[in-house]
Amino acid sequence: MRKKVTLKQLAKELNLSISTVSKSLKNDSEISQKTINRVHELANFYNYKPNALAVSLKSNKTNTIGVLLPEILNHFYAKVLYGIEQEASKNGYKIVTCITNESYEKEVEYVEMLNYSSVDGFILALSKETQMLNKLDHLKELKRDNVPLIMFDRVSNEVECDKVIVDDKNASKTAIQHLIKTGCKNIAVISTIFDLSVGRLRLEGAREEVSANEGVTLIELPVKNIETEEGEIESFIKNNKIDAVLGLDETAAAVAINMSNKLGYKIPEKISVIGFTDGILSKHSYPKLTTVSQHAQDLGAKAAQMLLDRLSNTSSENNYKTNTEVINTSLILRDSTN
Amino acid sequence: MRKKVTLKQLAKELNLSISTVSKSLKNDSEISQKTINRVHELANFYNYKPNALAVSLKSNKTNTIGVLLPEILNHFYAKVLYGIEQEASKNGYKIVTCITNESYEKEVEYVEMLNYSSVDGFILALSKETQMLNKLDHLKELKRDNVPLIMFDRVSNEVECDKVIVDDKNASKTAIQHLIKTGCKNIAVISTIFDLSVGRLRLEGAREEVSANEGVTLIELPVKNIETEEGEIESFIKNNKIDAVLGLDETAAAVAINMSNKLGYKIPEKISVIGFTDGILSKHSYPKLTTVSQHAQDLGAKAAQMLLDRLSNTSSENNYKTNTEVINTSLILRDSTN
Repeated sequence: MRKKVTLKQLAKELNLSISTVSKSLKNDSEISQKTINRVHELANFYNYKPNALAVSLKSNKTNTIGVLLPEILNHFYAKVLYGIEQEASKNGYKIVTCITNESYEKEVEYVEMLNYSSVDGFILALSKETQMLNKLDHLKELKRDNVPLIMFDRVSNEVECDKVIVDDKNASKTAIQHLIKTGCKNIAVISTIFDLSVGRLRLEGAREEVSANEGVTLIELPVKNIETEEGEIESFIKNNKIDAVLGLDETAAAVAINMSNKLGYKIPEKISVIGFTDGILSKHSYPKLTTVSQHAQDLGAKAAQMLLDRLSNTSSENNYKTNTEVINTSLILRDSTN
Repeated sequence: MRKKVTLKQLAKELNLSISTVSKSLKNDSEISQKTINRVHELANFYNYKPNALAVSLKSNKTNTIGVLLPEILNHFYAKVLYGIEQEASKNGYKIVTCITNESYEKEVEYVEMLNYSSVDGFILALSKETQMLNKLDHLKELKRDNVPLIMFDRVSNEVECDKVIVDDKNASKTAIQHLIKTGCKNIAVISTIFDLSVGRLRLEGAREEVSANEGVTLIELPVKNIETEEGEIESFIKNNKIDAVLGLDETAAAVAINMSNKLGYKIPEKISVIGFTDGILSKHSYPKLTTVSQHAQDLGAKAAQMLLDRLSNTSSENNYKTNTEVINTSLILRDSTN
């Protein structure tokens, strides 16, 4: 028996493109009769059987979703991707992911590439550089092409599309409230994400909540590179009169815990610590970290659901009303606070 | 001025496929003259300019690499992906990533999809299920299609292709040697990856090294679900006479540290701990974890280099000699060992 032959191999042997072979097999009138005959001849010779993917080309649906993430070393995005994958998979969709590494240029390139290779829709969080440059034409064009886009976490009001965001400002407020309720008065905010929209929102929430409470003070420490600035966090904790740290990202909180341990400051007796992102660092710190969970997996699942809704909506209406879903955070109380 | 029009929009308006439009613009003889004329007419009307991606179709090269990872919540794979991305990007290649979530079926589906959408080559680590079923035809077929494949970390000897592996067995030996050298005699191995090839190799290395040293004992604790079995690790450490733990994965080591802290066992005075994977948990544990670094980023970069070498090799020779590169690990000494 002859080996199973693929569309690709037929194409190669005939020196034609895959799509031409595919169309020739369907006697598509776009293709010249001569080519159609050549293709059928070889396909019969090999007893070629088309696969499901080849068939999907015809419907112009690929059942594939393109996901663009700003980075992958951040556990939050890994968990969002996990949530998207689970939800999409349940519904028979495949996911292809591209990492922009916080680059505007890569974001544009990948959107173009995936759109060209015909994903049915996009789920995307903006790269840091795109947020700073505020250049968004590559996303606005998707709407014109009638390709649904769901933005999450790092979104822009200038792009008209469905969005899933985390209530970051309120999340900070809730965290500060908890610190105040448990007796903390001198609160420090440590952040490595001062320049991101989510970082700004979290800081705003903390400031507002502290202002609303008499006798409570806030001191802020922006950190550029957490890998090299642990010592600065140590001296900051040592040299300031503080009884609580709110880390606006998970690593900042983890380092605050470690430096407090190093200084011999008991947690939470002498200093309370709260972080953001319920990732592996929060679960495996000592003591375990009280943290704001943004429910990353739920967020991913929600984004996937919204996209699938758009895709199953058969109307080709381009001017639909867009929605913004807000994922509520919750404060997970562990051992680093009273 | 008219808006910039894309190939996709032309295709839509003409009710043709993108590739047909692309070929028509190049007056490809595969396409009927009638179709060619229709396409040119509309393209001229919109003053259409082809983009780089459309052009790449012609050369049958997409400058895109498909990466398949078994999971994404594991920091090791995230770092490998980062290494691949950096290296590929330097060389003008794009990366699309699919997550198999340890499923054989998804692995097959994604290999087929990416191959069909014409990535130039693959970088892949086997899913857990694929390793267990040992069904590898989907990968063997790539060779037949002359699509280069690089396997890494979780590889199979039955697939003839270039591989990048970590010297896991020797890594364990080095870790055990260090524990013995610093006075440990009763060593525990804790692992959540007993059923993976890398887990078995690491265990083998530990067993061999302990056997070679008189008066040293080894006790093994396999853990199915680390999230729910912390208590078991705690009692295991409490109820056995051990002065060192080798965690065969990062989480096992992190939990061993936390449980020792909880029991009031001083690290490293009473108990030494070594882990695998130099990820965020190792850097942000307290005390900081001595760990086997598998140089995940270097591994990713190496895999990308090997693939790029294959792709730039213009010979269409299908029976080339394959290479297996071994990435040497190193023991990063931090504060959890003497």
